[in-house]
Amino acid sequence: MLFAEQLALTDRGLHYGDGLFETMAVVDGRVRLLPRHLHRLAHGSARLAIALPDLSALETALQEVAQSMGEGVLKLIITRGSGGRGYAPPQDAEPTLILLRYPQNLPTLDDAQAGIVLRLCTLRLARQPVLAGIKHLNRLEYVLARAEWHEPEIAEGLLLDTQGELIEAVASNVFIVKSGCIFTPCLDQCGVAGVMRAEVLACAERLGVAVGEARLCLDDVLSADEVFLTNSLHTIRPVRVLHEHREWAVGALTLRLQHALWGALCV
Amino acid sequence: MLFAEQLALTDRGLHYGDGLFETMAVVDGRVRLLPRHLHRLAHGSARLAIALPDLSALETALQEVAQSMGEGVLKLIITRGSGGRGYAPPQDAEPTLILLRYPQNLPTLDDAQAGIVLRLCTLRLARQPVLAGIKHLNRLEYVLARAEWHEPEIAEGLLLDTQGELIEAVASNVFIVKSGCIFTPCLDQCGVAGVMRAEVLACAERLGVAVGEARLCLDDVLSADEVFLTNSLHTIRPVRVLHEHREWAVGALTLRLQHALWGALCV
Repeated sequence: MLFAEQLALTDRGLHYGDGLFETMAVVDGRVRLLPRHLHRLAHGSARLAIALPDLSALETALQEVAQSMGEGVLKLIITRGSGGRGYAPPQDAEPTLILLRYPQNLPTLDDAQAGIVLRLCTLRLARQPVLAGIKHLNRLEYVLARAEWHEPEIAEGLLLDTQGELIEAVASNVFIVKSGCIFTPCLDQCGVAGVMRAEVLACAERLGVAVGEARLCLDDVLSADEVFLTNSLHTIRPVRVLHEHREWAVGALTLRLQHALWGALCV
Repeated sequence: MLFAEQLALTDRGLHYGDGLFETMAVVDGRVRLLPRHLHRLAHGSARLAIALPDLSALETALQEVAQSMGEGVLKLIITRGSGGRGYAPPQDAEPTLILLRYPQNLPTLDDAQAGIVLRLCTLRLARQPVLAGIKHLNRLEYVLARAEWHEPEIAEGLLLDTQGELIEAVASNVFIVKSGCIFTPCLDQCGVAGVMRAEVLACAERLGVAVGEARLCLDDVLSADEVFLTNSLHTIRPVRVLHEHREWAVGALTLRLQHALWGALCV
């Protein structure tokens, strides 16, 4: 059995957050961007020196589950496995794989085009280059950031780091458009490098739009022509409002990118 | 039943490290420093807005387990509980309590007096004031720091933060002695405020020794007259060697403090 039916109370995922996860959209019986998810998982495993499961067996298993599900969300967790007391990773740890199914309707292109309200979080992300970019299980900062608001009309929270650099949103990456160029924050100090972020970067390049990573701050958001968020489930979401700061019309370049992205995702 | 027999695969302790833990020494059928452990747990729960379990019921349950164990280690984990997908903490979450028993012999005063070899870790702790001091479940930095060495003769690894400040060791707090005064690093940016650290601070005050928190760096360690570590299981451990840096004789003030501490712990 590839996926655990229950978790040992000694699992290091619980004790230390010693593991990784992927949240994947299932559309038309297939995992969207599966190769990118598997690639990020392999990269994260290498960074944490967690033994990688057989990726082709995992791919097959995920595809089978997706097919039986039709539409929804799959969350895969991989931990270093069970261990004794103490931080030292056991030499012979067998990784634990957990798969959770959340049947639900995913946003359509129409939903995605409506645009969202964003707020600025008070919590600032810590800078830890050793963990930056990977989707590990140490997510207390994001829990605390998400706990800052309850208003259902606010879809996301913007996150700066402790030095005031723009990083991402709580469960999304952020992009800004300035004079026809697209920028997204560097994620070498903190933040999660989303698979949809990578797909959007590739999509913009295919369109011949100038696009790249940059060191950005809140002022860059406030002076941007367009702002949008990306994540695996919501694809691209234009930002209409940064609560108590600024409003934008849904931008032409954002819409163009959104159409191109959906075209590529539906192939 | 106060303690969970198994963990739901949806538990937020696993998904986000959304919880706290305590590692407690059991000696002569009693939990050592139990009031300090419960106090830290209450403080951590308040910081993370995790519903606190009934502390007097928890105290009674821990004492009963300790009595049946005699000697060993108890690890208590408390998570925010189970939840749906997404970082937002559920309003009605019921905390999960997990208790793990590790029967083993604890170090004696003789063991503790022998002194240890310490190394300097390459990993630098991130500065995150919102999480600093509390014993939460986001411990990947410590896993990676502990994975830096395999030599059994090296007992602990010294940790600086990303700005080069001295913070602690992987599973201990650190103290230095200079000209008869004792200093331990401030833990307002990162690190875990150990219960034995608090006990040693109180013990030094009772002895009339000048003692306090300070912003320290590696040079302060290298120029210290004496260096020692504290943790719940090992009490005070004199540092004899900082690997590739310096050696010390076991110091008079460290030994004096060690005797006074053991006297207080055995009451």
